[in-house]
Amino acid sequence: MDITLESPLDMHLHLREGDMLDLTVPLSADHFAGAVIMPNLVVPVDSLDYLLNYRQAIEFYCTGKNFRPYMTLFFKNYSRQELEESREQILGIKLYPAGITTQSEAGVSDFSAIEETLSLMQELKIPLLVHGETNGFVLDRESEFLDVYRSLANRFSELHIIMEHITTADAVELLDEFANLSATVTLHHLMITLDDVLGDLLRPDLFCKPVAKTPRDRSALREAVFGGHPQIMFGSDSAPHPRHKKECIGCAAGVFSAPVALPLLAQIFEDAGCLDRLQDFISTNACRRYRITPSEKTVVLSPTAWQVPDYYGDVSPFFAGQTIRWSVNSTISAK
Amino acid sequence: MDITLESPLDMHLHLREGDMLDLTVPLSADHFAGAVIMPNLVVPVDSLDYLLNYRQAIEFYCTGKNFRPYMTLFFKNYSRQELEESREQILGIKLYPAGITTQSEAGVSDFSAIEETLSLMQELKIPLLVHGETNGFVLDRESEFLDVYRSLANRFSELHIIMEHITTADAVELLDEFANLSATVTLHHLMITLDDVLGDLLRPDLFCKPVAKTPRDRSALREAVFGGHPQIMFGSDSAPHPRHKKECIGCAAGVFSAPVALPLLAQIFEDAGCLDRLQDFISTNACRRYRITPSEKTVVLSPTAWQVPDYYGDVSPFFAGQTIRWSVNSTISAK
Repeated sequence: MDITLESPLDMHLHLREGDMLDLTVPLSADHFAGAVIMPNLVVPVDSLDYLLNYRQAIEFYCTGKNFRPYMTLFFKNYSRQELEESREQILGIKLYPAGITTQSEAGVSDFSAIEETLSLMQELKIPLLVHGETNGFVLDRESEFLDVYRSLANRFSELHIIMEHITTADAVELLDEFANLSATVTLHHLMITLDDVLGDLLRPDLFCKPVAKTPRDRSALREAVFGGHPQIMFGSDSAPHPRHKKECIGCAAGVFSAPVALPLLAQIFEDAGCLDRLQDFISTNACRRYRITPSEKTVVLSPTAWQVPDYYGDVSPFFAGQTIRWSVNSTISAK
Repeated sequence: MDITLESPLDMHLHLREGDMLDLTVPLSADHFAGAVIMPNLVVPVDSLDYLLNYRQAIEFYCTGKNFRPYMTLFFKNYSRQELEESREQILGIKLYPAGITTQSEAGVSDFSAIEETLSLMQELKIPLLVHGETNGFVLDRESEFLDVYRSLANRFSELHIIMEHITTADAVELLDEFANLSATVTLHHLMITLDDVLGDLLRPDLFCKPVAKTPRDRSALREAVFGGHPQIMFGSDSAPHPRHKKECIGCAAGVFSAPVALPLLAQIFEDAGCLDRLQDFISTNACRRYRITPSEKTVVLSPTAWQVPDYYGDVSPFFAGQTIRWSVNSTISAK
C-alpha cells in the first residue's frame, strides 16, 4: 500500500551555491514542498539583498516544481530597519556560535552582545534557529550548550527558538521545560551512532556536525520522534561536499541525505510501527510551530525497492549502494 | 644538549609484509634496538615455520642495523609441543578478540575455550599480549574488556599479561591491582583525543583502534607515563596503510608513527619536564618486565628541528607537515 504525504518539508537544508545548486535543488524540490535554506555560504548570507539574490539562484533550478525555499539570514546584530525590511522574506535567522561548523567563522562569540537583536526578533516574531554547540570536547558540545538555550528561552519567552539537529538525550529532555523551544532531528541521527562513524572502518560519508552520539542518545531521539513529540520537526541537515573534500586527510563535515530522506524515513517509521506519525514529523509539526502554510503538494511513496547510487554527481549520498524499500512514486501539486 | 637513549625498544609495532617491509623496517631499525612485531598479517602468523619466514623477510631489510625483531605468534590454541618448540623464537603470543581490528577475524571469540593454552603459556613463561576491546560501543570497548583482564590476571597469576595500547583512565588504574599486568602506551594516545580525530575536520590519519578517547583519559595516560609508572612501556602501535586505504570511504585504522616516535617522545617528555624518565619508558621498563636484554645500541637525539614529510612512500605519517624540535642524530652500536 502506498504512503501519501501532504506537503513534506525539510526544515534544515544546505543547498550550497554556484554549480552545486544544479545538483542539490532539483533533488530536494522533487520530493519536498519546501525547505529551510541555511545561510552559511562561503560568504555568509547576512543582508537582504544577498538573500534575495541567493533565493533567485535557487528558484532558477526548481522552476515549475512547486518548491518553496524558506530563506534564513546568518545571525549578526541587525538594526530594527533591517529586520523590518527582511521579515516577510525570511523564515528566521540562523545563529552559529563562532567556529563551530562549515563556514561559521563569522558566528557569535559573545551572547551578551546580541540581546538587542534578539529583543527585536522577539517583537517582530522572527524565529531564531540555533546550531547549539560549544567549543568543548566534541561529545560534550551539545550538552554543554543547553544552558545557553535555557537562558535564551527564559529571557525571551515569546521568541521561537529552534534547537537545530539535536543529537542527545539531554536536548530532547530540555524541550519539556520550554514551550518556546522546538527542535529539528535529522534522518541520519535517527539511524547511526558514533559506532557507525568509526567503530569499524572510518566513514567520512557519515561524518557530520554535531557528530553522531551514543546508542542511548539515539534511543532518546527515536523515542521522541517515533512517539510523535509535537515540538520536533524533520530537518535533514543534508550537507553535500564534493568527493575531494570527503575522501582526504581533513575531511569536511556533512551527510548528503536529501535524495534518500523521504524513502528512508518511510522505511524507519514503518520499522518502528508508527507510519501514522510520519506526516506530523515531516510537515504538520513544522507548520504549527512556525505558523506557515506551505503550498499543497502531495507526495506518494510506493513499496518499490531501489538501490541508492554511489554518487550523485560528485557527492556520495547517505545509504550509498544500499537498498531502500520505499520510492517516491509521484508528486501532485494543487493547481 | 643532546639526549642519549640506550637501546630504545618499540614494544608494539606493525611492519606489515611484502613490499611494505622495504619502507617500514629501515625506518624502525634506524631508531630502535628492537621492536615487538605484531602477527596480524593478511594470513595471521600462527605457526613457527611461518613466523621464522616472516622474521627472515624482516631481517633482510635491516641487515647491519643491529635491530632485533621480537616475534609474536597470533593466539590460537597451541599444543605443548608447539609452544615448547616456539618459546625460544618468540617474545610472546598476541591475542585478538575476534573481529576487533585489522586482520583479526581469526581471533578469540570464547575465552573459556583457551584455558589450556593459557596454562601452558604460564608454565612455559610465555607472555600474553592482548588487544583488549569488546565488540561494544566504540568508546566503551576498552573499559568493558577490563573484567576479562581481571579474570585472566587472577586465574593465571604467574602469566605476564600485557594490556596493549591502553587508552583509558580505567585501564591505567587496573595496573595497580595486579603485579602480573603490564601495559603499552602509544605516542599518539599521549598526544591526541577524539577531538583531534573528529572535533574539527575529520582526520583519517589519526584514526586508529582503540580510538583516541577523552581529555580525562589522555590526562591519566600522561600522568602515568610522565610519572614513570614502572608497569608501562612504550609501544608505538605504528600501523601504516597506503594512501588509498586511508583517504577513502571506509578508511583503515592505524597511525603511522614509527619514523617520528623517538623525536616526538623527546619533545613531549621535555615539555612535561621529565626527560629523565624517557629511558625507563623507552627501554628499561620493558627489559625488566619481559626479562630481556637487547643488544647495545646508543641513540643520540639533538635539538635540531625538522619538518615531518607529508608522506613516506605512499603512507602519511603522524605529525605530517609539522615541525619536531628533536632529531635522531647518530646511532652507535656496540662492537
